[in-house]
Amino acid sequence: MAEVRNKQVVLKDYVSGFPKESDMHIIEGTVILKLPEASSEVLLIKNLYLSCDPYMRILMTQGASSYIPGSASHSMKPLTGYGVGRVLESGHPDYKKGDLVWGITKWEEYSLVSSDQTLFKIEHTDVPLSYYTGILGMPGMTAYVGFFELCSPKKGEKVFVSAASGAVDLLKNKLGFDEAFNYKEESDLNAALKRCFPEGIDIYFENVGGKTLDAVLLNMRLHGRISVCGMISQYNLTQPEGVTNLANMIFKRIRMQGFMVSDSYNLYPKFLEFLLPHIREGKVVYVEDIAEGLENGPAALVGLYSGLNFGKQVLLVSRE
Amino acid sequence: MAEVRNKQVVLKDYVSGFPKESDMHIIEGTVILKLPEASSEVLLIKNLYLSCDPYMRILMTQGASSYIPGSASHSMKPLTGYGVGRVLESGHPDYKKGDLVWGITKWEEYSLVSSDQTLFKIEHTDVPLSYYTGILGMPGMTAYVGFFELCSPKKGEKVFVSAASGAVDLLKNKLGFDEAFNYKEESDLNAALKRCFPEGIDIYFENVGGKTLDAVLLNMRLHGRISVCGMISQYNLTQPEGVTNLANMIFKRIRMQGFMVSDSYNLYPKFLEFLLPHIREGKVVYVEDIAEGLENGPAALVGLYSGLNFGKQVLLVSRE
Repeated sequence: MAEVRNKQVVLKDYVSGFPKESDMHIIEGTVILKLPEASSEVLLIKNLYLSCDPYMRILMTQGASSYIPGSASHSMKPLTGYGVGRVLESGHPDYKKGDLVWGITKWEEYSLVSSDQTLFKIEHTDVPLSYYTGILGMPGMTAYVGFFELCSPKKGEKVFVSAASGAVDLLKNKLGFDEAFNYKEESDLNAALKRCFPEGIDIYFENVGGKTLDAVLLNMRLHGRISVCGMISQYNLTQPEGVTNLANMIFKRIRMQGFMVSDSYNLYPKFLEFLLPHIREGKVVYVEDIAEGLENGPAALVGLYSGLNFGKQVLLVSRE
Repeated sequence: MAEVRNKQVVLKDYVSGFPKESDMHIIEGTVILKLPEASSEVLLIKNLYLSCDPYMRILMTQGASSYIPGSASHSMKPLTGYGVGRVLESGHPDYKKGDLVWGITKWEEYSLVSSDQTLFKIEHTDVPLSYYTGILGMPGMTAYVGFFELCSPKKGEKVFVSAASGAVDLLKNKLGFDEAFNYKEESDLNAALKRCFPEGIDIYFENVGGKTLDAVLLNMRLHGRISVCGMISQYNLTQPEGVTNLANMIFKRIRMQGFMVSDSYNLYPKFLEFLLPHIREGKVVYVEDIAEGLENGPAALVGLYSGLNFGKQVLLVSRE
């Protein structure tokens, strides 16, 4: 049985406020490259790419497991998160050695994956594998479900996405948005929204929360829809900002729907069928910010919360 | 043409903060009991009952018309509101002299009603006429739409209604609620909700807003539904309270839907068919607090905002 090095990113303790690189350790352990016997862990995978996602901050808070059912707080264990890996050993009939997969894994070089975790076999490898941490993985599915399934967009409707990315020039010149602004640089969010949406907003894809949501509520149109995907501006606050304009929901008949993509993974085949042709034909522009090496994971992850990433933040763990 | 006295309740000026009796005048004008010619006002009615409803405060705020489309602020004019009346003259084919109607009217003895206002003919007079200001009128329809249509209740689900009424004993002993508390007397709303809903809340009918909504969000169950009907705790504040627990919408997949009953009046016949048998068979307990005389209208209306009413607050203008 081959015993090999297994570098891991481990959280030292629960985090309050903004996470710092120093909140995490890099540990060099070892792992035996063989599935344990009589265990629920049915796959041994080598992690190739790991995904840096805003929601990961929530799992660093003490007691997080009490409000995300089924989740475990990260403290003293390797971080968990989405990633792309290669199957080294399989005890599950749906997977065989050599298969590429994406789903929930750990921030380490080799991971044991149990049968009840979110995992998908990667069938289409004519697109970059790293895409399965982003546009073709959990974040892409999240956008699809929150926008198409929950907000039922109609042609001509005005759409606002908060925390779309870290750079205004990128959004306008490369990604095809009509307007964009940096919410951290606008002193008056209401004025910024009025400038970009003189006729108001029909659909709001909510990733920020707090003051941004408050300003959006003032600018929503009648029968507007808000899919509540995340509230990144609030995750690092010990006292969240208050939202004061909710009474607009009444007069404007607004619907707000909180969701987690994991409820909708049954739509993944439909999503792939819709999106893959767009990617192959170059109709979707996608930008990645790839950091290399597990030891650079903490900086890449921490950078998300101050907007240092330029496009989807990915961590390359291994090229093969 | 008979010219008769027409007492009116007129708002002196826009209101900020809690409304006071002294914000309103009683004016004694006169009216000619005849429909004006070539006018959009097609009915002359004698007001019998007027309804005191929390939303009326909103129309007393300067600029209210800008956020309630189609509404006019009340200042310097008789208050508008729902009421029950008798048709004295009709220029509309659907109504004839002597018909009883309910809908939007003015706080005065005689009103001209235009053809584009909300108005329903009262077909069933075996129940008290005043019921059409409440359980069989706009408030009843509001409860029906917000609860049955928007929240799709399932047997066994736990339901919380805020601002259900002014008295806990009434709610528990007479109206059949399992539990009740006075939100103004609870120092810890979260604890009060945990006491009443140890398993959490599936459906919340929101009438209060602010701190109450914040506490409810902590106690909602997975896939909970909130119909947002009103936020009475916020209407008199110049600076609304902030709601800080909205991130619970994500983890718990909560849907919040703002609504105004006026969008759903097409369901009124279905509603009557459902509710009238319950009333006739005594299966619905309904409590009214009836003040008498237009001159007592300001006190009755103002009392709503400090919870002085015991049941539905109605104003009896005339018995015939």
